[in-house]
Amino acid sequence: MELETLCSAAKAAKYEVAAIDTDKKNAALIRIADLLVAESESIIIANARDIAAATTKGMSIPLIDRLRLSEDRIKAMSEGLKQVAELPDPLQDVLEEWERPNGLRLKKVRVPLGVIGIIYESRPNVTADAFALTFKSGNAVILKGGSDAIYSNTAITSVIKKGLKEEGITEDAISLIDSTDRETTVRFMQMRDYVDVLIPRGSAGLIRSVVENSKIPVIETGAGNCHIYIDASADLSKAKSIAINAKTQRLGVCNAAESLLIHESIAGTIFPEIARALHDKSVELRGDETALASSEFVVPASEEDYGKEYLDLLMSVKTVKSVDEAIAHINKYSTHHSEAIITEDKESAEKFLKGVDSACVYVNASTRFTDGFEFGFGAEIGISTQMLHARGPMGLKELTSYKYQIYGNGQVRG
Amino acid sequence: MELETLCSAAKAAKYEVAAIDTDKKNAALIRIADLLVAESESIIIANARDIAAATTKGMSIPLIDRLRLSEDRIKAMSEGLKQVAELPDPLQDVLEEWERPNGLRLKKVRVPLGVIGIIYESRPNVTADAFALTFKSGNAVILKGGSDAIYSNTAITSVIKKGLKEEGITEDAISLIDSTDRETTVRFMQMRDYVDVLIPRGSAGLIRSVVENSKIPVIETGAGNCHIYIDASADLSKAKSIAINAKTQRLGVCNAAESLLIHESIAGTIFPEIARALHDKSVELRGDETALASSEFVVPASEEDYGKEYLDLLMSVKTVKSVDEAIAHINKYSTHHSEAIITEDKESAEKFLKGVDSACVYVNASTRFTDGFEFGFGAEIGISTQMLHARGPMGLKELTSYKYQIYGNGQVRG
Repeated sequence: MELETLCSAAKAAKYEVAAIDTDKKNAALIRIADLLVAESESIIIANARDIAAATTKGMSIPLIDRLRLSEDRIKAMSEGLKQVAELPDPLQDVLEEWERPNGLRLKKVRVPLGVIGIIYESRPNVTADAFALTFKSGNAVILKGGSDAIYSNTAITSVIKKGLKEEGITEDAISLIDSTDRETTVRFMQMRDYVDVLIPRGSAGLIRSVVENSKIPVIETGAGNCHIYIDASADLSKAKSIAINAKTQRLGVCNAAESLLIHESIAGTIFPEIARALHDKSVELRGDETALASSEFVVPASEEDYGKEYLDLLMSVKTVKSVDEAIAHINKYSTHHSEAIITEDKESAEKFLKGVDSACVYVNASTRFTDGFEFGFGAEIGISTQMLHARGPMGLKELTSYKYQIYGNGQVRG
Repeated sequence: MELETLCSAAKAAKYEVAAIDTDKKNAALIRIADLLVAESESIIIANARDIAAATTKGMSIPLIDRLRLSEDRIKAMSEGLKQVAELPDPLQDVLEEWERPNGLRLKKVRVPLGVIGIIYESRPNVTADAFALTFKSGNAVILKGGSDAIYSNTAITSVIKKGLKEEGITEDAISLIDSTDRETTVRFMQMRDYVDVLIPRGSAGLIRSVVENSKIPVIETGAGNCHIYIDASADLSKAKSIAINAKTQRLGVCNAAESLLIHESIAGTIFPEIARALHDKSVELRGDETALASSEFVVPASEEDYGKEYLDLLMSVKTVKSVDEAIAHINKYSTHHSEAIITEDKESAEKFLKGVDSACVYVNASTRFTDGFEFGFGAEIGISTQMLHARGPMGLKELTSYKYQIYGNGQVRG
């Protein structure tokens, strides 16, 4: 479909989607969940075309694996939709309510954002996932997936549209842009008249390109150069297990730690043990002079290392003289995603929590907890690293805006 | 000062500004308020240079009047600062607090946005006003005023900096861009590495240009094509006084009404009286055929009239068959700012409140109430017409973001 026609149809559908009641939305999510499993064969056949094209193109094995859909993965997608059906509808909330001296009664109520555009890369499960969250929060969604997954995404979208139709809901609640060329993507980012918000999901390069080119308001997600700061009073066993967990539990995710800060007073005490433990997990440590002098498992760092999101078995190490220096270093190099202090000192903890300018700041816990499910939101569309609108994990509430409903009895302004 | 140096200094100051306690912020606001009055002579001399340049340029009398500063206007600016000092500090609020089954304790707390850029036009009082609100909410501000007011803005900024210095606060809490050429403005809008949010204040043209050119996240403010819908069951006296107030109480403001919708059943009953009353206030009504046939005071409207923000003694009139048609018309033509229904029918009222997609939706009250002071926020930096972050009048709270502070005792992710 022509891009502008598609965007215009989504805009035309948004008020209809906004008005669907909770039960009907949940029924549709459950029906679509069942349809995905029932029609998994057609999805897997479509996916095979993507896999074949990717193989011909010489795509790497891990990327092909991310692209692949199996019965189990489709079942997981289906389960995800059912979980979203069980979450409370964010549109039911009255956020505030008050009366003015002139008798006007004001009600601040949640409303959907409208049309949400999502630009993402190769994982086709995002298609179902993003639909479920935007739909439950009353939005119409326009998806622009990667060219690698175009057949899979088309098959999944067509199952979703079928489910919507069966429930008597407009199929324009979901649209998939089927051109995969770059020019279409750039044109999509100019569709400010139709699309209310754009959320990019994927690599740092994708996100940068959206931020650079979009005329639509963007929620920036993703990049995480996360820090673990081990304070003078840190408990060795907490420091060791948190550093290992944050760095190695899953390498390629935005809430994994990339940099270790150590207070100078622990350089010769507990740091060598932590360095050995990380080395035993195959992590290469790149550190400053003090770190180098304190452990045989440290190689020299360059200035650039401190700004890097490795997403790999690599970690930078920087020695600081105080919690203040740790905070200043983090605020300079981090992507404002997630950082942790390991300390037994309450004052240091509070200083760190207050001073570090990141979405999620931890005391004695792994940065890996920055996640909508771990926070108890029951869902996650992404993790915002910007200041506007939403910060940190974004669940259903973060996919909404609000409006004021004002009750008068003839008031005019004097 | 070179633009990048100035932006970088503001960024370097932002954490210092964020950490200033409430009492110190209030003391600085009061000191600056007093200094503005004490140094009003130097401000008025600077303002005279702007007035002289504007006169030479042939600026219109009303615009010159907006530019002019008098002892009284400076006193009003000073009072404005003192009022902001009296408002509660939005950074004191803990927004939410909860515990997860794994023992993690999460606290969602307000934080400043960081560095706020404000691009505005000729009224120099915005300089003091914008400083007060951004400073009280813990932000550093970079101001880019219009070239017409450059001497006035420079004088006001220098008094503010003097006051900050006397209170031992970094002068970089406020910066004024002193180049007034367009190229600097465009370069300023690219300073994403330094500026967290950009708020344009001024004409529709200014706002459009910022939205088009900015790489920094923008809060779009301002344009208001506001509607008054007179329902079948409307009370004549409410309808008449609200229509007159919303249209004529102040013409050049964004919350003034620009379009009148009438239910067809009142075309021949109460509409003629309302049309006459508006005509008596010198309002030219441009209507559709039914409106034309119902009142001698209506001239024909063109399609474009329905999309216009006149800011003048003009109003479009459109006849509709139902509240649903009124809602659809509004959602098509409005700028999503403020709209009102005049009705004695509860069902129509609720339908309208729910269906109209605008920041502020009224029942039986004038759209002129869309204002931070009228809402009880005690202040206003502008009225947002976008969905992201904030919608409607923006006070101190709307100039903040949040972060999560998470307390653990060694938790790692499994």
